[in-house]
Amino acid sequence: MPDISSRRRTVVAIAALVAGATLLAPGLASAAPSEPDPRGNGGASRHGGTDSAESLRSTIKNSNAKNVILLIGDGMGDSEITVARNYQYGAAGRLPGIDALPLTGQYTTYSLYRDGANKGKPDYVPDSAATGSAWATGTKTYDGAISVDIDGAPQPTLLEIAKANGLKTGNVSTAEVQDATPAVLVAHVGARGCYGPDSEACGTDALAAGGLGSISEQLLGARPDVTLGGGSASFEQVAKAGQWEGKTLFEQAEERGYQLVDDAPGLAAVTAASQQSPVLGLFTPGNFPTRYAATTATVGGADLAPVTCQPNPERLTTDLSLSALTSKAISLLQNKKGFFLQVEGASIDKRDHSADACGQIGETVDFDEAVQAALAFAQKDGNTLVIVTADHAHSSQIVDSTPPTSLSTALTTADGTTMKVSYGTAGAGASQQHTGSQLRIAGFGPGASNVVGLTDQTDTFFTVANSLRLDRNTVALSDGARVETDRRVKPGATVTVSASRFGGDRQVRAVIGSTDLGTVDVIGGEARISTTAPKAPGDYTVTVTGAQTGKVVTTKFTVRK
Amino acid sequence: MPDISSRRRTVVAIAALVAGATLLAPGLASAAPSEPDPRGNGGASRHGGTDSAESLRSTIKNSNAKNVILLIGDGMGDSEITVARNYQYGAAGRLPGIDALPLTGQYTTYSLYRDGANKGKPDYVPDSAATGSAWATGTKTYDGAISVDIDGAPQPTLLEIAKANGLKTGNVSTAEVQDATPAVLVAHVGARGCYGPDSEACGTDALAAGGLGSISEQLLGARPDVTLGGGSASFEQVAKAGQWEGKTLFEQAEERGYQLVDDAPGLAAVTAASQQSPVLGLFTPGNFPTRYAATTATVGGADLAPVTCQPNPERLTTDLSLSALTSKAISLLQNKKGFFLQVEGASIDKRDHSADACGQIGETVDFDEAVQAALAFAQKDGNTLVIVTADHAHSSQIVDSTPPTSLSTALTTADGTTMKVSYGTAGAGASQQHTGSQLRIAGFGPGASNVVGLTDQTDTFFTVANSLRLDRNTVALSDGARVETDRRVKPGATVTVSASRFGGDRQVRAVIGSTDLGTVDVIGGEARISTTAPKAPGDYTVTVTGAQTGKVVTTKFTVRK
Repeated sequence: MPDISSRRRTVVAIAALVAGATLLAPGLASAAPSEPDPRGNGGASRHGGTDSAESLRSTIKNSNAKNVILLIGDGMGDSEITVARNYQYGAAGRLPGIDALPLTGQYTTYSLYRDGANKGKPDYVPDSAATGSAWATGTKTYDGAISVDIDGAPQPTLLEIAKANGLKTGNVSTAEVQDATPAVLVAHVGARGCYGPDSEACGTDALAAGGLGSISEQLLGARPDVTLGGGSASFEQVAKAGQWEGKTLFEQAEERGYQLVDDAPGLAAVTAASQQSPVLGLFTPGNFPTRYAATTATVGGADLAPVTCQPNPERLTTDLSLSALTSKAISLLQNKKGFFLQVEGASIDKRDHSADACGQIGETVDFDEAVQAALAFAQKDGNTLVIVTADHAHSSQIVDSTPPTSLSTALTTADGTTMKVSYGTAGAGASQQHTGSQLRIAGFGPGASNVVGLTDQTDTFFTVANSLRLDRNTVALSDGARVETDRRVKPGATVTVSASRFGGDRQVRAVIGSTDLGTVDVIGGEARISTTAPKAPGDYTVTVTGAQTGKVVTTKFTVRK
Repeated sequence: MPDISSRRRTVVAIAALVAGATLLAPGLASAAPSEPDPRGNGGASRHGGTDSAESLRSTIKNSNAKNVILLIGDGMGDSEITVARNYQYGAAGRLPGIDALPLTGQYTTYSLYRDGANKGKPDYVPDSAATGSAWATGTKTYDGAISVDIDGAPQPTLLEIAKANGLKTGNVSTAEVQDATPAVLVAHVGARGCYGPDSEACGTDALAAGGLGSISEQLLGARPDVTLGGGSASFEQVAKAGQWEGKTLFEQAEERGYQLVDDAPGLAAVTAASQQSPVLGLFTPGNFPTRYAATTATVGGADLAPVTCQPNPERLTTDLSLSALTSKAISLLQNKKGFFLQVEGASIDKRDHSADACGQIGETVDFDEAVQAALAFAQKDGNTLVIVTADHAHSSQIVDSTPPTSLSTALTTADGTTMKVSYGTAGAGASQQHTGSQLRIAGFGPGASNVVGLTDQTDTFFTVANSLRLDRNTVALSDGARVETDRRVKPGATVTVSASRFGGDRQVRAVIGSTDLGTVDVIGGEARISTTAPKAPGDYTVTVTGAQTGKVVTTKFTVRK
């Protein structure tokens, strides 16, 4: 019989035997050996054969983060991650951002049916609107919904709640900022196509129909400290109703105090972002161009000569890469109360829809660089939760042989071998479909342990809110609201109404007697309105109503000569 | 401004607000609420909104397991898991086994090219032979290889190493035991099709060609304490060379001390399994029939009326379900030194190849029940590592609308809604392909933290070997080998050769003078051979050589009247 005690030697022996492997450091997962040789025993190990219990324990921090950075790779299923890794870094390589997060799990992404006999039942293949609403609000909803539930009721979002709790907030995307993922944080509309005042999709959500307004208009009202992305076209549209009727949304933004930028030098010149002067950087009329030029998958395409992805000449300057925007947003958001930032790599999804392997890969690589930027900050900061996940799975599959009827493309990878990518859910020219698989979710920092195991997409909302210790009862945040005004003014003189402690509201409406003074932005819980006092002497009631909470406060003043 | 201190209330508030959710218990992940209503805020939460840091920390145990149960869902990618969950338990439901493991990660599965300019480079879509060799030996290899490296060199397997270290071992599958996943633990052949002595695929691996023999023959030599599955057909074949030439493999097994069973009552009658009397239970000539009857996907099939999976009348009695076999194997393997057990749900893959949604789902559900059995034991035992994963991803995708050219099927799920499953990697009648996506790996028990984050499939070998503190240098386990015999015997009398401390070997060969006494099984490090002494008086040398380690020991005896 072997000497059983000799088994004790193995822990050390295995670590020594795994040639070239590095040990898992506490914190981020370690880099792969610089020149991995997967051919020998243990040569393909990513782990080094050592027990990770201690290092994993050390990465588990109780859920108390000052900042949260949530990065969403749109349509970035495990297949899309693997496609990008294989292409850019090789099968034994690693995505330096995405693969570095130490705590990992899977989550379910289904949406719900809104109508008919299936109302409230699972729809197994969700869209980015429903999935975004799920992680942004903790509420499952129907495809197309932007942070409203299946009955159309608005659901408070992480960005709104974080802001109401006094944190700074940011929203960054390579898509139009009206696209579903950024939209779910700042707007509540029944149909995701309601981008601007001209959008027919708005229906009863349009201001002119008495609704909350288009996504762009609601974005201005949500007033994140930092919004960076594409989608300037919608801001050229003119408001059809409300206080800014007749003005473009850009004019409105300027009047409401936004710092508007549209290019890299403009962004570089911005040195601060606040509720007084939020930053709205829109760098393209529509979505950002991707890192790599598009490839076209065809039936039998993977039997053609394999391609190497080419730089996209349309790509924005690298000062406006998703990584650069992420770093800029972080620098603008840092403050002692903390921040919530969402960063989306949008075109993993969009190029997957188009069966464009290189487009999808380039966007995943760009997204990975944004993850690296977030992790670099979080590692230095020590008090930041970083979550990296996707919203739904997608079409692309890595296959061995060229499928007979599906679209496919062959690529020459970093390994120097050929990878065949197949798109089998739609025909040529049609949009490839999302798929319903559960997805990877990964975390680093305080609260990251909540992503481990099987969760649902809606759990992400609670994980983030929990880590930031947000009071989700935002109505209560206006409980202590007050209004003050001059006690006595002369007829026609200036009277100033000062509302405060409206923390749960983003706007308040003020009325003097029966005169509506309109809606003003609440900044830091406060709003101030100056108007001309009535000419007729007498006592007047000032009523200030929170636009989001419905909280009503009143005061009185007297007009006397 | 809101009172920031009010954020402190949130941890408690969130837990209270998430209606119906249960808390994560230390150990296994908690069951979902009995009647989840995903419509309300937090209603779809699987997590309960509480911080899992403490419970997760408590699940992380240092890597010192007495037993390891490794469960492989063949072809069970995240998509296949989701398909089965949606169908059987609903989108908001959970697979009671698979979804209960608290520690989760992803791993890469690529294989390597054996030949030509790409030799040693990654092959992005592996087969079960290469992937099995990877987790069984820690060595990446080429598609089709059974525990040999790309140069054909045999690589020691977890089962062989565990046995050499004095642990009991088991190997259970719903496939033929010669199929890749069970085969990689017990055999070393260059082509996976080398099932039995009649298999042409054996080539130079055939005993008649001087090789190690077919998978079935090597399985008998590997001598796991418990082997349960299908594949009796290959054991009816007759050895073409070696000591058992002319006998069927069943006859050979019987002569070598195996307990042979082929039905449920036979298995029930087995009360012990050991190296003296290993159990070989083969219940079907080929693979096991699946739980559900097959469905046929067609182009446009998901537009037909959705189907409900029907019981398969061919299914074996439930005493022979994978769960039942797993429980039986565990009961036979329990011993104070510990055990290593592999359990495969084989036909997730096989039915996915056939675009058979119900077949694939039923096998996943059967596999999940086996996981439940393993977890029930591990939870009670407290010293058992359970790992649940797959070997490679596969074709099936959940889609929203019926794909135009891919095969598809619509199913009515436990939710009462329709799930469309698409197979787009091959045409009707052809075999759907494996895919190259990274996969879920999940663990419970001591050492389970090593599955978290991104690993490679080969890391699993080290995780298991490490947890069991196996001495992987099996050659050294025969270092102290000895041989003894009678000092002096009469011509033609019986002489007994006793070899011991051959822990690294499964067989030894004994030679007296120039007379080859053949190969005998090593049991507990020992082997005993009785033969007739030479008639000619004189001194004779006895040479005993370890078949696996090459260790040579000698002694002498004298023949004297």
